[in-house]
Amino acid sequence: MPETHVRRRAALRSQLRERDLDALLLVDLRNIRYLTGFTGSNAALVVHATDSGDDERTVFCTDGRYVTQSAAQVPELARVIDRASAPALAARLGSAVADYRRTGYESHRVTVEELDTLSGAAGAVDLVRAPGLVEGLRMVKDDAEVDALRMACAAADRALADLLERGGLRPGRTEREVARELESRMLDHGAAAPSFETIVAAGANSAVPHHRPTDAELAAGDLVKLDFGALVDGYHSDMTRTLVLGAPADWQRELYDLVAAAQAAGRAALRIGADVRDVDAAARDVVARAGRAEEFLHGLGHGVGLEIHEAPALAKTGEGTLSAGMAVTVEPGVYLSGRGGVRIEDTLVVRDGDPELLTLTTKQLVVV
Amino acid sequence: MPETHVRRRAALRSQLRERDLDALLLVDLRNIRYLTGFTGSNAALVVHATDSGDDERTVFCTDGRYVTQSAAQVPELARVIDRASAPALAARLGSAVADYRRTGYESHRVTVEELDTLSGAAGAVDLVRAPGLVEGLRMVKDDAEVDALRMACAAADRALADLLERGGLRPGRTEREVARELESRMLDHGAAAPSFETIVAAGANSAVPHHRPTDAELAAGDLVKLDFGALVDGYHSDMTRTLVLGAPADWQRELYDLVAAAQAAGRAALRIGADVRDVDAAARDVVARAGRAEEFLHGLGHGVGLEIHEAPALAKTGEGTLSAGMAVTVEPGVYLSGRGGVRIEDTLVVRDGDPELLTLTTKQLVVV
Repeated sequence: MPETHVRRRAALRSQLRERDLDALLLVDLRNIRYLTGFTGSNAALVVHATDSGDDERTVFCTDGRYVTQSAAQVPELARVIDRASAPALAARLGSAVADYRRTGYESHRVTVEELDTLSGAAGAVDLVRAPGLVEGLRMVKDDAEVDALRMACAAADRALADLLERGGLRPGRTEREVARELESRMLDHGAAAPSFETIVAAGANSAVPHHRPTDAELAAGDLVKLDFGALVDGYHSDMTRTLVLGAPADWQRELYDLVAAAQAAGRAALRIGADVRDVDAAARDVVARAGRAEEFLHGLGHGVGLEIHEAPALAKTGEGTLSAGMAVTVEPGVYLSGRGGVRIEDTLVVRDGDPELLTLTTKQLVVV
Repeated sequence: MPETHVRRRAALRSQLRERDLDALLLVDLRNIRYLTGFTGSNAALVVHATDSGDDERTVFCTDGRYVTQSAAQVPELARVIDRASAPALAARLGSAVADYRRTGYESHRVTVEELDTLSGAAGAVDLVRAPGLVEGLRMVKDDAEVDALRMACAAADRALADLLERGGLRPGRTEREVARELESRMLDHGAAAPSFETIVAAGANSAVPHHRPTDAELAAGDLVKLDFGALVDGYHSDMTRTLVLGAPADWQRELYDLVAAAQAAGRAALRIGADVRDVDAAARDVVARAGRAEEFLHGLGHGVGLEIHEAPALAKTGEGTLSAGMAVTVEPGVYLSGRGGVRIEDTLVVRDGDPELLTLTTKQLVVV
């Protein structure tokens, strides 16, 4: 999709000109992937602010392992091959100071030590802090990105459906076995990898928000919390469902209904222009009215895309308002220490009107 | 293994005292795991230089998701629960300046923006650059670490044996299917995950050092390069084998023998006290004498442990000498663009005498 990348670089260039920058030196591989399509593990990129299209002042660098791959993925950009990719581009800036006098750099990614190296290489170029510019653009997903997220969410939905259909969730299996099967089934459905370490938490373990699967066996009467996602074309899905093995006890049903109501309130609050703190509050208030505010231990949700956690944060400490095309999770949880917990999480895209739901597995309480 | 972590913290404390530091503020999760055993995704740690054992001046921080897990994994350390883990500990330093007057920080991990936040929180404490201290300790593996590496390498060896035994490598299968099966079989043999994205490269694709598996089908006569590894207990294995589908052509046999000879020379050079550049040269010279120096596109190898790539680098640009207990890869490759390439890679531990080979799959040319 070269025209996609051309469009994204054009959007970045407007930002650079607004900030009176001649160029931006990028080191974050996800940002570079977003702007170029390059998927290797070593790269740096300079985007010049006033290039006519992409002339030689916009330049990409990777190392010798990626000569062939980068020629195929980034054919339209000038290219340097050097293992020390960011310093090599900094040196290039330094050798053409007139073009790059005031160049931004990703100060939220560049370490203190790396800045020394870059500054040394860039000579008379003034390296200026420019944190989060591409992350700002990445918050709003374009159609190609939503397609990738949709495929990632579908892989996770299908994996869970397979697991349940084939009796994969039953007393006597271990958390680890269930996690393993979910991950394997996501690969069956087109995932390149799980998008993060799968959480399977049974019984009292379900009260641990980020429990790692153990050899503990699932038992009749357990709440079983499954938090998992698929990686497709670099994009991450994220979904949590909590099920119960056998007939639910009253407290389990009550807890489930509470979290489901909070989650519905959170989804309903996903509107263009909504303050992210208000979205968090919409769900949190439901939990608080039930006297469980202290047991909702985390934020309501987060942006999702090329990273599993990205902007915006739907949380008390979040900032900003929602725009059409933002992809976020909504995942309230209530955790009763020593007994069990429930979390219900969807990935959704903010739209004009109702948000688009990407994770399609039912949110009814599933009794296995 | 709490005594392991106590020993590692003691080794770090000697380093701090040598550098006249009162403490070290750590943010790198692998370094924190190495020093404490904590496996969660958010943590910071302050190690005080002159603690008597671990008193309250050595303190660990994570967020609310990990209250239970951190109590189990890090019971012996003072603990703070705060989502902003590093700033929270910096503030703690700032409130007890007399104990932390000169505190090191991981300037190779802390970004320019993060340093602002930490400095603001730490008040009158003098935050001093201290890059790579724990990485230096981590180069030499202790017995527990070599055990984990051995298990990781065994999972990869067994996965490849299974694949071959069950006819998984045959004309008509795609690179992606083979990668998928290798990864799945590693999980069968105890891996928590692949240790990096599996490379399966068939035919001309094998000439791309870091090729990503595609839907290209394996064909009779292809060289097939498999570069893969398993993650066990946080430790990464790394192995490459190149096989041939059907009777090898003369040029394939010749190329294979050349790389195998270079690899053997590299392994033979792994001696206590050897300069890492000399180890690289030992293998590279074999390739150069065959007139193929330009087609050996990367360094000879790298350290491996809690990261898939860590110190030391066995490369022309590397620095330092080998010590007993260092775990490294030896992986020469020769790539004939458009035709095919061969890479052969082992993970080994430097020992008194011959190195210990952890990846046990044969290095004879396997004809499938």
